[in-house]
Amino acid sequence: MTGIEWIVEAHGCDPQSLAEMPRLQQLFADMVREIGLRPVGEAQWHQFPASPQSQQPGGITGLCLLAESHLAVHTFPEHGSLCLNLFCCKPRPQWDFGKYIKKHFAAQTVNVRQLERDYATASGLKVFAKAGGR
Amino acid sequence: MTGIEWIVEAHGCDPQSLAEMPRLQQLFADMVREIGLRPVGEAQWHQFPASPQSQQPGGITGLCLLAESHLAVHTFPEHGSLCLNLFCCKPRPQWDFGKYIKKHFAAQTVNVRQLERDYATASGLKVFAKAGGR
Repeated sequence: MTGIEWIVEAHGCDPQSLAEMPRLQQLFADMVREIGLRPVGEAQWHQFPASPQSQQPGGITGLCLLAESHLAVHTFPEHGSLCLNLFCCKPRPQWDFGKYIKKHFAAQTVNVRQLERDYATASGLKVFAKAGGR
Repeated sequence: MTGIEWIVEAHGCDPQSLAEMPRLQQLFADMVREIGLRPVGEAQWHQFPASPQSQQPGGITGLCLLAESHLAVHTFPEHGSLCLNLFCCKPRPQWDFGKYIKKHFAAQTVNVRQLERDYATASGLKVFAKAGGR
């Protein structure tokens, strides 16, 4: 049996949006609803303090334990970037990460990689698709 | 700036060991100490119920929010497998995932992939190394 991990990097985002906790929490809520994920317990959130060298607010990390595996997000307002992981050990419909992140975080580019996570047969080694344009 | 994500799959593990919460918690504790990670808050753990079709106990998921990004583990006793992610947004020393997982979970094979997670310059697309043998 093969799981899939979506590994997403978004760049050129609006830095303020990357520091807004409710906006990040809404991302998780929308993914859970639209992809049909099943959280196991509450998501964990942390906002880091702003770097003294940076004019930008501190980034946010969120983790959510799913019946399907996990969901993780990290934002870097100082770089205008966001990193997202979704690991599903069972098949799930494709979700348009690029469209969502461009709309809600004003990303200029969104890269989506899909990795096989083969947890049953020890053959899950390749990165089999790069989806989503810059 | 480029982060690294280590993506690990171990197969042929001892199923009982994959269902022992203290053993999984020790994995995180050892990684934190040996790699020099800095957890932000307590790790979150969940043990799934055993599948009625399986003779094996239920798998365990653990997530830990780090100052460096995150650490995630999922075990599948019914498949004798374990999946681990460590995302570090700053350079960290290499850690011998294979040696540890073979020793503590009796894995027969451990595959380690390293992915660049480029959160600053939008160029982090390649899987640049496959380390650890089967």
